Amino acid sequence: MCEHPLPENSGKDPVTPRTDDEKQAVVNRLRRIEGQVRGIQKMVEDDRYCVDILVQISAIDKALKRVGYSLLERHTHHCVKDAIQKGDGDEAIDELMKVVQQFSK
Amino acid sequence: MCEHPLPENSGKDPVTPRTDDEKQAVVNRLRRIEGQVRGIQKMVEDDRYCVDILVQISAIDKALKRVGYSLLERHTHHCVKDAIQKGDGDEAIDELMKVVQQFSK
Amino acid sequence: MCEHPLPENSGKDPVTPRTDDEKQAVVNRLRRIEGQVRGIQKMVEDDRYCVDILVQISAIDKALKRVGYSLLERHTHHCVKDAIQKGDGDEAIDELMKVVQQFSK
Amino acid sequence: MCEHPLPENSGKDPVTPRTDDEKQAVVNRLRRIEGQVRGIQKMVEDDRYCVDILVQISAIDKALKRVGYSLLERHTHHCVKDAIQKGDGDEAIDELMKVVQQFSK
Repeated sequence: MCEHPLPENSGKDPVTPRTDDEKQAVVNRLRRIEGQVRGIQKMVEDDRYCVDILVQISAIDKALKRVGYSLLERHTHHCVKDAIQKGDGDEAIDELMKVVQQFSK
Repeated sequence: MCEHPLPENSGKDPVTPRTDDEKQAVVNRLRRIEGQVRGIQKMVEDDRYCVDILVQISAIDKALKRVGYSLLERHTHHCVKDAIQKGDGDEAIDELMKVVQQFSK
Repeated sequence: MCEHPLPENSGKDPVTPRTDDEKQAVVNRLRRIEGQVRGIQKMVEDDRYCVDILVQISAIDKALKRVGYSLLERHTHHCVKDAIQKGDGDEAIDELMKVVQQFSK
Repeated sequence: MCEHPLPENSGKDPVTPRTDDEKQAVVNRLRRIEGQVRGIQKMVEDDRYCVDILVQISAIDKALKRVGYSLLERHTHHCVKDAIQKGDGDEAIDELMKVVQQFSK
């Protein structure tokens, strides 16, 4: 499972632009994650117990994956669906499968 | 695999205090991760392509796991080893196994 | 991420029946995995070194995931695509997202 | 995280031989997994719905990981602990960390 990874910048756009509310909801979740990452920095500086830090890292990891899944969901319901409806689905599906694999490793 | 999770705060301390250099190295990696999380916020605000954002999230996830593994390694080489040498190893090993499981889910 | 799991038996069928060649290819991979699982039983009976057994388990795990991804790919290229073309895509996409999540945990 | 993988055969032995009961318990779990793998072969031959098969694969994956964790646990409580008590712990810990990483990918 070490095939060609997806490019960092595909040059594509979302088929349906995100609404301001959608953007805000994702940004809010990412801000909370950013705060959690800062929280761990403090735990390290305070020389806190390793396992306690690991529990926090594991919580951030899960929060990050949840954001990822919600983006994946939106992407499939909009971009992939739209591509399929335009008869252009196979490429979109291949890309989707690739990101799913990269994401679950 | 949904047993009792580890507590958020165990009240324990690392057996060997982290040196300033060790702390700095971990904090630097976490700062870079914090910057990456902010980078994704900008990608969302700029309405960038979902898959491009997912590729970044997946990169952060891997960076976070690497920090986790390095903490795990230090923890095992110091706290767990020390507990075993003091004849107190079984509890430390159980805790280690728990955090490994929580971490790899 | 501990929502309602997917049912064991949905009562559905693949929209495009698998050809005999397709079936055979998947069955062959599963037979190899079955053989690997038997191989580990022997390793346990022969009291082989734990880490060597774990390396094998990890290899089986990866082989199993690869089979899973190939089924997922076919499912998306056929069943999900077909549902979307029939205007019935959202349910199929929700199911797909659910199985992706269950699978990558 | 793509460093040198562990060798397939380390040439080592478990420090405490597994008892017959221990062996039997692991073998029984592996036999059940073997049966589950055969069950999926039948599902593929019967052309069952892809998502139903994926749910089963995901269940096998979890069962396999559980066996892995129980071996990991025994390994740490016996081999790693013993190596540490003999003053030879660092190598055993490095190996443990490597297998944990390989296992959770």
